[in-house]
Amino acid sequence: MDSSHDIKVWSIRNLIPSTHPRKDTLLVREKLVEQMETGAVVPQGLIAHGRGECFDYLLGERTNAFAERSIEAAAALLLLSSYPVISVNGNMAALAPKELVELSKEVHAPLEVNLFYRNEEREKKIGEILRDAGASEVLGVGIDASETIQELFSERRKVSSRGIYRADTVFLAMEDGDRTEALIKLGKKVIAVDLNPLSRTSMTASITIVDNFIRVVPKLTTRVKEMKNMSKDELQRIFQSFNNKDNLKESLKFISERMSQLALSL
Amino acid sequence: MDSSHDIKVWSIRNLIPSTHPRKDTLLVREKLVEQMETGAVVPQGLIAHGRGECFDYLLGERTNAFAERSIEAAAALLLLSSYPVISVNGNMAALAPKELVELSKEVHAPLEVNLFYRNEEREKKIGEILRDAGASEVLGVGIDASETIQELFSERRKVSSRGIYRADTVFLAMEDGDRTEALIKLGKKVIAVDLNPLSRTSMTASITIVDNFIRVVPKLTTRVKEMKNMSKDELQRIFQSFNNKDNLKESLKFISERMSQLALSL
Repeated sequence: MDSSHDIKVWSIRNLIPSTHPRKDTLLVREKLVEQMETGAVVPQGLIAHGRGECFDYLLGERTNAFAERSIEAAAALLLLSSYPVISVNGNMAALAPKELVELSKEVHAPLEVNLFYRNEEREKKIGEILRDAGASEVLGVGIDASETIQELFSERRKVSSRGIYRADTVFLAMEDGDRTEALIKLGKKVIAVDLNPLSRTSMTASITIVDNFIRVVPKLTTRVKEMKNMSKDELQRIFQSFNNKDNLKESLKFISERMSQLALSL
Repeated sequence: MDSSHDIKVWSIRNLIPSTHPRKDTLLVREKLVEQMETGAVVPQGLIAHGRGECFDYLLGERTNAFAERSIEAAAALLLLSSYPVISVNGNMAALAPKELVELSKEVHAPLEVNLFYRNEEREKKIGEILRDAGASEVLGVGIDASETIQELFSERRKVSSRGIYRADTVFLAMEDGDRTEALIKLGKKVIAVDLNPLSRTSMTASITIVDNFIRVVPKLTTRVKEMKNMSKDELQRIFQSFNNKDNLKESLKFISERMSQLALSL
């Protein structure tokens, strides 16, 4: 079982000087730290965010051409799917709750709380955040997560029978490799947002969007709106012509070239 | 002022499967999470650790040739310095307290607690960790940090009159750019351990060791032991022939080439 302890957290939102060159980055960090106080974000989620920050920096902190292409393919796949589901963890809920609700409404995909560190209290908090952001229903909270995914151990295998269990496509972000692999083994398609092109999730997903989750979600919603009236054939063509491995290679080449340019400019 | 709140932390040390491919990485993370419970590590320190993890991954999680060279130059500088001081933050104390105490004894450099998020309770905890690891004295705790560094705002400028204030060389790791710049402006030499070759600390320090702090400290202590009997001239030659900018360039080129190779192997 988990052991739980009380600790003190100091929010330094008011201590950030307005002139600090990385002010925006610091404010996003404080958002996560503050959501750790509510229990929605776990400490391990902060470490994961740090890894993401690093890759985002290497990617130039912008949505690059390869990411735009994977967003387009993801929009096509979401529109082609009969039952897409959005899997939400603590970091996702803390960073872009309204944007997730909008995407959910636009593609008629339910939101399901699905945590690496499962715990009913946390599920409820995340459910609350999503409902406060406008969600009419949130799956995967408490006994709703009653179905099990055989490939995974312990509490991580619990999913909602109305959600991920019956989904043909799962949209997720910053996910553990084991879990992404389990979903793929079950025959589901996975759209993953992951800043690390080398993570097991990135390598395993059907479509990996190598970009910052905060930038991706609104862009994806916009793209879905734009592509809504396309024919199934056209959407199929876009989805089929997308090669995830090639796209990941492009992102690695981008980082490689950027590092090499930065070395020259030192 | 800081606001402080009670939150729950779940340690998952016992939930990590022994077969997990990244077990060691997960255990280091738990060490930090557990030290957040004692107050030694702050949430922002977890995010910083995550950034470090990413760069370590890009560097192949080993001490590369350029890092070996900077460790050699650092050993020379420590042996040449008349009053070197080791600046310790929460993450450093949580990850390698014994190794820091050994380095401190080997180069006769006092340990000084020096926090970005200063707070007497935290200072005391970190002092405790270091004393438990064998330190006979720890500077920078409470009223000992009575001198001020003019370049820095608020609590971050407080240092010990017996430590960083009078040091000619400061050894630090995972440090904020503003603070490293302030130390350099005061005419001090700075040896920085930083996995990000592009951070302001890395760019500003006299010697930057682009490697994982946990690997660096014992290696640096060993190098100091090996070089102890060298003449001042020989040590000077080693230190003078080290060019920090060139070394940082090499680390960037290394990452660039590694990413390009990984892209080919996908």
